[in-house]
Amino acid sequence: MNTPDSAAPPAAAPTPRTRTLADPDTPFAVVDLHRTRRNIERLRARADRLGVTLRPHVKTAKSLDVAALLHDGAPPCPVTVSTLAEAEAFADGGYTDITYAVGIDPHKLPRVIALLRRGVTVRLLLDSAEQAASVAEASRRAGLPLPTQIEIDCDGHRGGIRPDAPALTGIGRVLHDAGCLDGVLTHAGESYFAYSAQERRLAAENERDAAVTAAGRLRAAGLPAHTVSVGSTPTAHAAEDLTGVTELRAGNYVFFDLVMAGLGVCRVEDLALSVVVTVIGHRPEHGWIVTDGGWMALSRDRGTAVQAQDQGYGLVTDLDGELIPGLVMTAASQEHGTLTARDGAGLPDLPVGTRLRVLPNHACATAAQHRGYHVVDGARAPRAAPRTAPVIQDHWERVTGW
Amino acid sequence: MNTPDSAAPPAAAPTPRTRTLADPDTPFAVVDLHRTRRNIERLRARADRLGVTLRPHVKTAKSLDVAALLHDGAPPCPVTVSTLAEAEAFADGGYTDITYAVGIDPHKLPRVIALLRRGVTVRLLLDSAEQAASVAEASRRAGLPLPTQIEIDCDGHRGGIRPDAPALTGIGRVLHDAGCLDGVLTHAGESYFAYSAQERRLAAENERDAAVTAAGRLRAAGLPAHTVSVGSTPTAHAAEDLTGVTELRAGNYVFFDLVMAGLGVCRVEDLALSVVVTVIGHRPEHGWIVTDGGWMALSRDRGTAVQAQDQGYGLVTDLDGELIPGLVMTAASQEHGTLTARDGAGLPDLPVGTRLRVLPNHACATAAQHRGYHVVDGARAPRAAPRTAPVIQDHWERVTGW
Repeated sequence: MNTPDSAAPPAAAPTPRTRTLADPDTPFAVVDLHRTRRNIERLRARADRLGVTLRPHVKTAKSLDVAALLHDGAPPCPVTVSTLAEAEAFADGGYTDITYAVGIDPHKLPRVIALLRRGVTVRLLLDSAEQAASVAEASRRAGLPLPTQIEIDCDGHRGGIRPDAPALTGIGRVLHDAGCLDGVLTHAGESYFAYSAQERRLAAENERDAAVTAAGRLRAAGLPAHTVSVGSTPTAHAAEDLTGVTELRAGNYVFFDLVMAGLGVCRVEDLALSVVVTVIGHRPEHGWIVTDGGWMALSRDRGTAVQAQDQGYGLVTDLDGELIPGLVMTAASQEHGTLTARDGAGLPDLPVGTRLRVLPNHACATAAQHRGYHVVDGARAPRAAPRTAPVIQDHWERVTGW
Repeated sequence: MNTPDSAAPPAAAPTPRTRTLADPDTPFAVVDLHRTRRNIERLRARADRLGVTLRPHVKTAKSLDVAALLHDGAPPCPVTVSTLAEAEAFADGGYTDITYAVGIDPHKLPRVIALLRRGVTVRLLLDSAEQAASVAEASRRAGLPLPTQIEIDCDGHRGGIRPDAPALTGIGRVLHDAGCLDGVLTHAGESYFAYSAQERRLAAENERDAAVTAAGRLRAAGLPAHTVSVGSTPTAHAAEDLTGVTELRAGNYVFFDLVMAGLGVCRVEDLALSVVVTVIGHRPEHGWIVTDGGWMALSRDRGTAVQAQDQGYGLVTDLDGELIPGLVMTAASQEHGTLTARDGAGLPDLPVGTRLRVLPNHACATAAQHRGYHVVDGARAPRAAPRTAPVIQDHWERVTGW
C-alpha cells in the first residue's frame, strides 16, 4: 500500500507556455485591461465629483471579472442588469444590490422572489398600473416587499411614463400600499444621438429634471422616492449637476465603441474591446481584403451608419492595437469580413495569415457574439523589438441567456 | 446489505408536467418541426430531381437535432460547416464527410488534421497560391492528404477566383502534387438580391457555369476535379439543370426567413424559426407596444431594409403562429422591442404579459443569439378550444463558438 511517504514525489507542474494574441484560433474577442481600467476610473471620478452613487450597468461586459474592476478590491458595488440571468450570476458572485432595469414581465416574478429570499435586493422597474398590481399581489403572497421603481420617460425614447403623467401617483400608491415603492428611474436613450457636448449637457439636465420632478410628485402625494436614478453613457459623461439624483447608471463606458467615439464621448484610443481576425484572402480587383471575422464575430450592429462618419462594421488595427489608417471593415457575411481602404489610403500589404483587430460599432452587441474575452494589458505590452504579439493574461467568461 | 431483491421498489418517476410556449421565461427561440420537415423535404425532392448530392450547410441551425432531420434515420449525410467548432461537433455526432466552406487560415490546419486522423473527411477551401502552398506543406508534414477545393467567384460577391483566372491551374497543380486537389466550389451570394424567379434561374445557371467551367479547365490541364459544388438557398430552389455539378449546398432553407420570403423563395407560412417575446408595456401616444425581445433576442440583422417591403426587425404572430395583420417589430434596443402597426392596421389590444412570436429577417443571425431551441410541432398543435399554447416537444442545443 502506498503511503504519502512511499509515493513518488509529485511531478513539477508543467509551466504553461505564455500565450499571445497570435495563438488562439480566430475570431475571438479581446479586452484591453489598461483601457478598461482607465474608462472605469474616468466615470468613477465623475460620479464622486457629482456626489452620486454609481450603479454600473453590467449588460455590456456581462462579466464578473470586468465587474470586479468596478469596485477594485472593495466590497461588490450596486449594479444594474438587463436580464435575470445576469441578476442570478451576479448574486452568485456576491452582489447584493441589483436593479433589473427592464420593465417587469409578471411571469418572471418567481425568479425575482427567489433572489430576494436569498438576501439579494433586486429592484424592479415598471410603468403601468397592470404591472404595479401584479407586483403588489406577488409581494403580498410572498410576504416580502419587492422593491420597485417607476420608469420615467424623459425623452420619448422607449418605455416609461412622462414625469407629469397623471398615472404616476396612482401607480406609486399601489406599490407603496404593498411596501414596494422604491423610487423612480429614467434613461436618456436619445442621448445616443446627441452630437455635441452642449446637446449632451442638455440631455443630462433633462434626464435629471424628469427624474427629480417625478420623485417630487410622489413625495408631494405623501409617497416615498428613496431612489432617484438616472443615466446613460453619454449623459453620465456630460452631467454637471445631479442635485436631487441619488444614483447614476451607465454601462457602455467600460469598453466604449465607435458609436461613442463618433458622438465625442470618448476617443478611438479609449476603445477597450476588439475582435481579432485573420486575413484569408485578397480581391485586388475589388480593393478587398477578406478576413475570417464576419457578423458572427462582430454582430450585425451598424450603429455608426447614422453618424457623420460611417465606420462600416469597424476600424482596423494591427495586433498591437495601432490603427491602420484608412482601413475599414465595410462588409460582413456570417464568417467573412471585407476590409477596404478609404480617404485615399492605399490597401496595405497584409498577407494571408495576418492577424488584425477590429474595433466595433457597438460594444454591447459585439461582446454578445462571444462566450468570453481574452485579456491583454495594453499598457504593459507596448511594441517590443523583436515584435511579439501582446501576451494574453487571462480569459474572462460572459453570462449568457436570459 | 441490500440486494436488488431486498431493495425497495424504485419510486415511480414523476410525470413531467407538459410544458407549452406559455411556460419558459421569454425571450426564447422556437423551431416549428412541421415546417422544418416540410422545408427540408422540399429541397431534398429538388436535389433528387436534379440528380445531385445535397450537402446541407449546417451553419443556420448549428444543431445536431436539426441535422438529424436532414437524413431522417438514414446514415449521416454530407454536410457543409462554417466553423471548425461545427466540424468538431458534427464529427462527434457521427458525420464523416464535412466541407469547411470558409477560406482556410493556415493556423487552423492542426485542428483539421486532427479530424482527418479520426477518419473524418474534412474538405477545405482556398483561393490563393499562398494558401495552397500552406496546405500542401501541412499535408506532406502530416503524411496525409488534405482534400481541398478551389473557391470560384461566380458573381463578385465575396471570395474566390474567377473561373477564367490564369491562377486556377497553378493552384490546382500545387494541390494535386500534394494529393490534395478535390475540386471546385462556388456560391452565388448575389442571388440574395435576385428578386424575380427569372433572375434566380439566371443566377443558378451562372453559378453552375462558373463551377463547371473551372472544373473543365482543371481537367484540361490534366488535373482532377472530383467535386463540383454549387449552392445558395435562392439558387438551389431555382436551378433547372445542374449538368456537370456533383453537389448542391444550401443552409437557410431549413428555417427560411423574411429575407427569403421577400425574395419569393418561400412563403411567410414556411418560416420555421421564431422568437417568443412578452408584452411589457404600452406607449399609446406613440403607437407602440413594448416587448422584452430586443436585438439580443432577434439580432441586429435588418436584411429586409433593402427589399421592397422593409419588415423592420420582424413580423409578429400570436403564440399559435397566426400572423397579426399589420403588426411589425420596428425598433430594438438590447432587451426591448417596439411593435407598431402599419398598412392602416389598428394597434391590437395586447395586455402586459401577452406572449407573441416574432418571425425574423435572417434565421442564421437570429438563431445565433440563442443557446438552443424549444421545439413545437405546428401540424399537431393547431388551435384548440379551450385555447392552450403549443406544447413544447423537445429542446435542441446549438453549437457555439469557433
